[in-house]
Amino acid sequence: MTYCVGMRLNKGLVFMSDTRTNAGVDNVATVRKMFTWHKPGERMITLMTAGNLATTQSVVSILDERTKVPAERNPSLLETPTMFQAARLVGEALRETIQTNVQSGQSAEAMFGATLIMGGQIKGTPPRLFLIYPQGNFIEATDDNPYFQIGETKYGRPILVRGYDPDMSFEQAVKLLVVSFDSTLKANLSVGLPIDFQTYTAGQYEPTHETRIERDDPYFQTIAHDWAVALRSAFLSLPDPEL
Amino acid sequence: MTYCVGMRLNKGLVFMSDTRTNAGVDNVATVRKMFTWHKPGERMITLMTAGNLATTQSVVSILDERTKVPAERNPSLLETPTMFQAARLVGEALRETIQTNVQSGQSAEAMFGATLIMGGQIKGTPPRLFLIYPQGNFIEATDDNPYFQIGETKYGRPILVRGYDPDMSFEQAVKLLVVSFDSTLKANLSVGLPIDFQTYTAGQYEPTHETRIERDDPYFQTIAHDWAVALRSAFLSLPDPEL
Repeated sequence: MTYCVGMRLNKGLVFMSDTRTNAGVDNVATVRKMFTWHKPGERMITLMTAGNLATTQSVVSILDERTKVPAERNPSLLETPTMFQAARLVGEALRETIQTNVQSGQSAEAMFGATLIMGGQIKGTPPRLFLIYPQGNFIEATDDNPYFQIGETKYGRPILVRGYDPDMSFEQAVKLLVVSFDSTLKANLSVGLPIDFQTYTAGQYEPTHETRIERDDPYFQTIAHDWAVALRSAFLSLPDPEL
Repeated sequence: MTYCVGMRLNKGLVFMSDTRTNAGVDNVATVRKMFTWHKPGERMITLMTAGNLATTQSVVSILDERTKVPAERNPSLLETPTMFQAARLVGEALRETIQTNVQSGQSAEAMFGATLIMGGQIKGTPPRLFLIYPQGNFIEATDDNPYFQIGETKYGRPILVRGYDPDMSFEQAVKLLVVSFDSTLKANLSVGLPIDFQTYTAGQYEPTHETRIERDDPYFQTIAHDWAVALRSAFLSLPDPEL
């Protein structure tokens, strides 16, 4: 599996993704699941992927080629007039890739499936965040539903539900995501370090921070340790029931 | 779905189960998922169920009838010489129930599936805890793997991983389980109040405490509120990253 979270804040957007891919527990590798296209001063679009690796790599390659080959018939991510059009473009690339595999004689549509998070900003509109389904359709983040998770979403959800605040700083948002990822990593082997993250400040049209958290990253280790201690003392501070 | 946890402590055993059952989101009901058989001074066996309700109710009825009809050929839960034999008996009842449904022309074996947690004590052996699979086979809790979850297990797992201690009192164990259930309830509609719990002290051969936590239970509401506050302040106490 995979774990990726895209989050909409008042300041902008935050993206975080793990890098583990596996076909069975004995076939494990590290791959990047976060991809960014940008045109300075005009647009930035970031994509995160979960699901069949052949599908997601193919989708990213299709999108990437379109930004490089001017004669290509379809519009490219660097040319769509709005984020909504960009999400449509990505959704179509995803649906076509899955359909091609299914039509080639394979029956299990779910096997080739993938789900994507896409966020970014095009000049003239505010930052937007989308969750794109294998069918190619998508939903957008709103004030009531300001973040999306894909992959192994359940372990890390309770802390997001309680910790999220749209007024958060990027530092706090990254900390919240690190805690959510740490909970997931501790419980599920199919999600693994290193972790990629990116922050985006509204109106900048390029990533504000972009970092890979490696296995021996001191901040990650501090959070993993301190969170275990803080969680335990938070738990001990609760009143015992009367039995 | 469902959420049940069975936990082995040095003092004995703790069981907790939710009561929501649903076939689609528009067909929701409350059912008990925790069942106990005991013979004073000699044995106590508790079962918790997750999965197809027709299957689990049938299994419980089969086991229950055997304890009441002395002429029944198969041994009953009140007569097996060991907990291992009791787990075999339950596993067989489960496998046979599922196979009967599958053979009657239905193809989707998974549809009729169920998973059970069984724990208890028979005089002469220590308390034991088992996880019983739809195939009828089972595994036993050990010092390295001292609790079992069934149903919607992921949301409530991180706190169990960090909070469990075999030396816990029953009060602390119930508190830990309430926190784990609260995290699950907050994230998944298929798990719902009321919650049943039972504690069992080694050598007592009857439940020590047995209670249903109702929707308006003041302790549950206190924990739900205080945990949200404690979690948030634990989170705020962590150092921010340097971006």
